[in-house]
Amino acid sequence: MSFTPPQAEQRFVLDHIVRLDELAASERFADATPDMVDAVLEGVGQFAAGEWAPLDRVGDTVGAKWTADGVVMPEGFVAAYKAYVEGGWGTIGSPTDHGGQGMPFAISTAVLDTLGAANMGLALCPTLTVGAIEALMHHGSPQQQAAYLAKLSSGEWTGTMNLTEPQAGSDVGALRTRADPLSDGKWSITGTKIYISYGDHDMAANIVHLVLARTPDAPPGTKGLSLFLVPKYRLDAAGAPGDFNDVRVVSIEHKMGLHASPTCVLSFGDNADCIGELIGHEGGGIAAMFTMMNNARLNVGLQGVQVAERATQKAVAYARDRIQSARAGGASREPVAIIEHPDVRRMLLRMKAQTQAARALVYYAAGQVDRANLGDVDARKRLDLLTPLAKAHGTDLGNEVASIGIQVHGGMGYVEETGAAQQFRDARITPIYEGTNGIQAADLVGRKLGMDNGGVFLSHVADMRAEAKDAGLIALIDACEEVGRHLLTADTDDKLAASYPFLTMLSVATCGWLMERSGTIAAGAEGDPAFLSLKRAAARFYVEQVVPEAQGLKAAAMAKAEVLYALTPEAFAA
Amino acid sequence: MSFTPPQAEQRFVLDHIVRLDELAASERFADATPDMVDAVLEGVGQFAAGEWAPLDRVGDTVGAKWTADGVVMPEGFVAAYKAYVEGGWGTIGSPTDHGGQGMPFAISTAVLDTLGAANMGLALCPTLTVGAIEALMHHGSPQQQAAYLAKLSSGEWTGTMNLTEPQAGSDVGALRTRADPLSDGKWSITGTKIYISYGDHDMAANIVHLVLARTPDAPPGTKGLSLFLVPKYRLDAAGAPGDFNDVRVVSIEHKMGLHASPTCVLSFGDNADCIGELIGHEGGGIAAMFTMMNNARLNVGLQGVQVAERATQKAVAYARDRIQSARAGGASREPVAIIEHPDVRRMLLRMKAQTQAARALVYYAAGQVDRANLGDVDARKRLDLLTPLAKAHGTDLGNEVASIGIQVHGGMGYVEETGAAQQFRDARITPIYEGTNGIQAADLVGRKLGMDNGGVFLSHVADMRAEAKDAGLIALIDACEEVGRHLLTADTDDKLAASYPFLTMLSVATCGWLMERSGTIAAGAEGDPAFLSLKRAAARFYVEQVVPEAQGLKAAAMAKAEVLYALTPEAFAA
Repeated sequence: MSFTPPQAEQRFVLDHIVRLDELAASERFADATPDMVDAVLEGVGQFAAGEWAPLDRVGDTVGAKWTADGVVMPEGFVAAYKAYVEGGWGTIGSPTDHGGQGMPFAISTAVLDTLGAANMGLALCPTLTVGAIEALMHHGSPQQQAAYLAKLSSGEWTGTMNLTEPQAGSDVGALRTRADPLSDGKWSITGTKIYISYGDHDMAANIVHLVLARTPDAPPGTKGLSLFLVPKYRLDAAGAPGDFNDVRVVSIEHKMGLHASPTCVLSFGDNADCIGELIGHEGGGIAAMFTMMNNARLNVGLQGVQVAERATQKAVAYARDRIQSARAGGASREPVAIIEHPDVRRMLLRMKAQTQAARALVYYAAGQVDRANLGDVDARKRLDLLTPLAKAHGTDLGNEVASIGIQVHGGMGYVEETGAAQQFRDARITPIYEGTNGIQAADLVGRKLGMDNGGVFLSHVADMRAEAKDAGLIALIDACEEVGRHLLTADTDDKLAASYPFLTMLSVATCGWLMERSGTIAAGAEGDPAFLSLKRAAARFYVEQVVPEAQGLKAAAMAKAEVLYALTPEAFAA
Repeated sequence: MSFTPPQAEQRFVLDHIVRLDELAASERFADATPDMVDAVLEGVGQFAAGEWAPLDRVGDTVGAKWTADGVVMPEGFVAAYKAYVEGGWGTIGSPTDHGGQGMPFAISTAVLDTLGAANMGLALCPTLTVGAIEALMHHGSPQQQAAYLAKLSSGEWTGTMNLTEPQAGSDVGALRTRADPLSDGKWSITGTKIYISYGDHDMAANIVHLVLARTPDAPPGTKGLSLFLVPKYRLDAAGAPGDFNDVRVVSIEHKMGLHASPTCVLSFGDNADCIGELIGHEGGGIAAMFTMMNNARLNVGLQGVQVAERATQKAVAYARDRIQSARAGGASREPVAIIEHPDVRRMLLRMKAQTQAARALVYYAAGQVDRANLGDVDARKRLDLLTPLAKAHGTDLGNEVASIGIQVHGGMGYVEETGAAQQFRDARITPIYEGTNGIQAADLVGRKLGMDNGGVFLSHVADMRAEAKDAGLIALIDACEEVGRHLLTADTDDKLAASYPFLTMLSVATCGWLMERSGTIAAGAEGDPAFLSLKRAAARFYVEQVVPEAQGLKAAAMAKAEVLYALTPEAFAA
């Protein structure tokens, strides 16, 4: 079915959640004027709806294929990706000194939102390239930046992140891929990486692998890791892709969803001829990885928004079209469109509210990236605090919304032909990759909550409390503060046992704060009455019905780990 | 991976939730002694683990296939089904005067629980046959019962339910399949039915379709519907399957999961040669359908238990086996099995607790079937009240648990080879078929809550309150009463808008009541220490952490429909 870019909603969020006018007041982002933003949203919306959305289904049904010549994308993907590069959509947020347009990250977030809602499988490719760009921007040498950044920004070349190995998933410190020094300052890379999204494909002239590996005599664990730049094809004297660099696709995974995205097993240096360059310094791999992953985590949270947006559009269209049963209690016995039935409306309004909430959360965090880049230290810290929330709660909401989308379709939702099932299957990877949501929760209570002795967390709580009006929302903010203060001094097991419920509470409080603000603004705004009525209703629903649910998590967030260890591992199988 | 029948757990639930000793005190169920029950659970457990569980995966990967000769089951299914028939597992709960063993429905529930946990796709076939048996038992003529019941009970023939048509899903009154009278008292059936599970297959000598159809000059809507018995092969003079009865498979659906189960489009009477017999009286179709569906609804709730059981077993096995990362905050830096990490334990204990809760709820309802059959009018009413809860909440929990199962597996959960994804995909149909969970919620507030002016509901609340000890559980029971009393007099839209949150609250209260009881009994019981520690921990976790979540739904359950109608259908697409 057709895809409608959520342009009015994005503009609203950029204006009132990101507060783009404040960013545009800076010299760096002076170009991000309202007219420019409208032009970008309009342009990418037309492009995504016209070129990418129609390929979403073939991406699922045919998928990427592994062949003797490497991975072949489904029909139409090569051209659609080429059109993306030629349209300049990859360069929106990239730095101007490397061929980019230098727009705020929040704008490139909106662009990626639209592209991924149209075709999440394809949009994952540039999403990963962003991670490679960030790592090179912050840790690469001037020579590396000059050789790679412009091509990565434009999308002519794509980037990957190579962390996971069979024995090293969440525990990256356990990885074994080796980097041995060569005489010319470069490194010989040997090892096998798994779960490498877009590890190979036929849409770009080169693929730039960022590979976490261990140098000889490096200390064990994460301290011994370094990050290497390993192109699929080495650059020749002119800087163009030349000799094959001994990086092979061994297989691609047979996944439940996201079939367009080839998830590769990559083998480096089978013929001892895989050459990499160190990015940054030896032992600096983890720091570089976090640079690469932090924005990637926001962008995976954004995938939650993307899949929720598409699932909601499909469900709304179906519910307006599908005629079934008269209204209960109504005078007429004529069957109506199912959107008229109260429980279906409840599902649809929940989908809209949760999608808006996820978008508000992720864009708000994206705005902190820009503020941090403008030198706002508090914004950097706020971003650090919110990144696990945006990733975990954004993807949780994507899954919830996609599941409701199936339910709205009834039996048709379970049949693959309608396409509702695709969003449900696609969504399920997002709470897993780029750090499982459990890892995000551990990051929240283990690293982020304690920043500045809790000051960063308490400052966020104070901002929410200063603006919140609804009594239930204020109660939830209070509960978050109580739980957060408790967890600051809790022991490690208790912290971790409570981490996920706490993450959800704090995420919902944050969303509630932003949603309430949106509703208030929509109530006083002039504009499209239908859109404003939707904003008001979604905000009311969220504050009145979703926020109280999170209060129900307080008991779990205050619970101790003890109950979890009151039985042995064997007893779980009793 | 291997499957372990949950025999100790089933026995515990039969003893303390169903209170089987009370049933066995009756003459009718005098054979249901502890020894007999153990023998049944042990026997079906061995059979299911040995014969059915190993086929679960081929059911998913190969699936049922539609051919020119009808539907062909995956390799091994015909033999496995034959072994089931020969083992007499289908006859456990069937009446003794039709070749059955006459055991309590609660026992046959446990048998089906085990079979479906081993292979949910295959177990759906006998699940549907039970519905046909029930309809014939209660509405069939003595001749029909004599001709069909013994064969259906044994499983030599299987049964189907034919309700849905393209324009008639939740609104069965909109169906158009015709039944025209023939001169011999039989009927000519013409029409197309969709979503017919096991509408065709090669495991049984005959398939007995129970078809809802409209007779000439019948009133519109559900009042004009009658139920017909339409065998695939007409019975010859000796009562054996004879001539083909003009029922054709037009196609089977391409579904997200449950691939072993062929979901058929059936065409009746293409050659005007499809003959059916009326079951009961003309216009009695809906009453007969509810008979057929009521136990089917319990059995679909039981599918939630089945899929949760299997998903939990897989996750526990993986978490005990998978070594990753040292314990945070621990002295040792040695990596441990992930079951040792607090958040993974939380996921696993939640899976165990929710699986036990779903089982307690469904078995408790199944016990009411037996009490009703013994003449207990209150039990019949309690069953009516609890059926939508068992169906909807049981299947919601199956989905939740299967999703956590994926998460425990991390990246491996998204790769089809581990099999964790199968449970997740299989589970997703259960909130849809046999009446969507939204229909269940509407049934609760529209029909069940008001029985005896709320007396049936209030009696259930009183039973829970009389036994509950935990303050949070009592608070939830109180909240259920408050919401229930409010909804009794609410207008139709408000009732329906609140129906789903209310259903969940009441389900969790009911589960909390039964789980708390289980924990108390386990604390005072003698037996396997590992099993008892699991029961205690699961009960504590449920009461302390899951019950408070449901309190968070009160705001939604007390909300009015007004917010849902504060925007137009068009505004949902704004």
